Amino acid sequence: MAEFHAASGGPSGPPLAVTQGDPAGIGPELTLRAWRDGGREFPFFVLGDPAFLRRLAARLGWSVPVAEATPDSAAALFPHALPVVPIGMEVVAQPGRPDPRSAPATLLSIETAVALTRSGRTAGIVTNPIAKHVLYEAGFRHPGHTEYLAALAAEPGVEPPHPVMMLWCETLAVVPVTVHLALAEVPGRLTDELICRTARIVAQDLRTRFGVINPRLAVAGLNPHAGEGGAMGREEETVIGPALDRLRREGIDVTGPWPADTLFHGRARSGYDVVLAMYHDQALIPIKTLAFDEAVNVTLGLPFIRTSPDHGTAFDIAGQGIARPDSLLAAIGLAARLSRR
Amino acid sequence: MAEFHAASGGPSGPPLAVTQGDPAGIGPELTLRAWRDGGREFPFFVLGDPAFLRRLAARLGWSVPVAEATPDSAAALFPHALPVVPIGMEVVAQPGRPDPRSAPATLLSIETAVALTRSGRTAGIVTNPIAKHVLYEAGFRHPGHTEYLAALAAEPGVEPPHPVMMLWCETLAVVPVTVHLALAEVPGRLTDELICRTARIVAQDLRTRFGVINPRLAVAGLNPHAGEGGAMGREEETVIGPALDRLRREGIDVTGPWPADTLFHGRARSGYDVVLAMYHDQALIPIKTLAFDEAVNVTLGLPFIRTSPDHGTAFDIAGQGIARPDSLLAAIGLAARLSRR
Repeated sequence: MAEFHAASGGPSGPPLAVTQGDPAGIGPELTLRAWRDGGREFPFFVLGDPAFLRRLAARLGWSVPVAEATPDSAAALFPHALPVVPIGMEVVAQPGRPDPRSAPATLLSIETAVALTRSGRTAGIVTNPIAKHVLYEAGFRHPGHTEYLAALAAEPGVEPPHPVMMLWCETLAVVPVTVHLALAEVPGRLTDELICRTARIVAQDLRTRFGVINPRLAVAGLNPHAGEGGAMGREEETVIGPALDRLRREGIDVTGPWPADTLFHGRARSGYDVVLAMYHDQALIPIKTLAFDEAVNVTLGLPFIRTSPDHGTAFDIAGQGIARPDSLLAAIGLAARLSRR
Repeated sequence: MAEFHAASGGPSGPPLAVTQGDPAGIGPELTLRAWRDGGREFPFFVLGDPAFLRRLAARLGWSVPVAEATPDSAAALFPHALPVVPIGMEVVAQPGRPDPRSAPATLLSIETAVALTRSGRTAGIVTNPIAKHVLYEAGFRHPGHTEYLAALAAEPGVEPPHPVMMLWCETLAVVPVTVHLALAEVPGRLTDELICRTARIVAQDLRTRFGVINPRLAVAGLNPHAGEGGAMGREEETVIGPALDRLRREGIDVTGPWPADTLFHGRARSGYDVVLAMYHDQALIPIKTLAFDEAVNVTLGLPFIRTSPDHGTAFDIAGQGIARPDSLLAAIGLAARLSRR
């Protein structure tokens, strides 16, 4: 992403809201570390249970003062303590032991973040990881975190927004057009319409949120060597090519379909602002190869800013204080930069 | 590849044979540059037309003396000139203009390299890129370069060898289990048997050719998150898992199936010697992201050493002297290191 034009300096506006995430996962300890280690450049508050975070800090032996806050008092408290805006639900979970009884608090933290962001009292949302299977046991009915945010963002009587996952680091941004699908299902699900809808949202949000005036989208082929003229698959000719023609007619700067293996080295990366990949691993392999700890998940297509660390709850190491806060810090930093535009 | 144990020093043995490749591609100019820029650490000779290479050097204004040689005189000539062993066929092609009349010379160069290597007069083969469509016009009937080498390596009455493509750079080695297939065909072609056959050849050649005493093979899943327990595809459970069980019973050190996007960052790479990927881009994206110019193609499973640069003929830039010799130099360097074991 060569042309990230975040405005810097100036009045900083309201702080960011960080959701609690699954309290048995690594989210809470990463949040404590993000405040402690993060340089406090970007004010944020947590939506959760202050007593739970105090107990966790004590247990880990970390000197992180936790202050009860309101969204409006949080920015002033932030230099001296981690501000926590109570959501009124006590957390009973133990680190590493997912517990469906935590589900209502996990969801309420997310809902409160959306409500505060929509009313302008926070600049954007950084979500800590949740575990879908824990929420499902408690009756959650959405396919995932992002879809839940999209549902919360929906206006009555209007089609809900189409959220698009972008993985971002300082040197690369990638968007998988299909995401959590078995590989065998990818060719059948890849449509001209899906590629176009995704590309439009990406181009729009790079313009408005990232300040890239003329976003350059490089689009990967589906097949090895982008099909090599039909010798190894025809989706480049029947699906991707026509989608790119349509997008070009709409004035979007797209190139491709490119052989995916030639798209991600240093010289290639200088030629575009974002890559549209056709499936999950085609997007995630290169960015996690380059920036495993620092990659950030940004949701495009929502009416507010939402970033999240690019990892899960990691129940297996939760509560030990060994999880790295790099990705959460990068998620907070990116949300802050986007919100200052 | 943490444990590459190439013997160093000692008597160096015969030189390497470098094939001519398609004379209209970038192979000939890269070969001139490899001699000029390569430090001359690893002696090699070209199997081709000395007059053609002299004309090309003159045309490019490069001071690369070309000496007619025999396989036995080449090593002594190498410090002072690029040794070329004539194959008795004149090249008429012009750079950038593929010409089916070059096909017999292209093939004879490869055949001669195999014959010389099998008789011990060269230490191994480094092949310059060929263009299949040019050879097909001239009646070539093999699926590709590597399959042709396997056919030349076949013994009468014995099943021909199963060649396995490994992409190698100093920090990563990857093997795609399926290679030049449309993505939609990959799930159907992936079998327990293919994974096991490939893994056995990889383990064997890492031991014998690379000197890795206990090769550690990390195996990628096919689906996002390696299927996440069947939520996104079942091949991990029905095909890859059983193959790994079988390989473990045979004493091969395999782990996986791993989510492919978590396998290629620096810390992960220290945990294995090679990754078995399930399809082309899953293997080639990470290595070309990390080492676009220096990656080398090594063919395992042949009765001789064969490496090649990891790029094609690049007819569009041939004859301009701008193609980078990094990959050919790396291919020569690796073949030399392997041959000294």
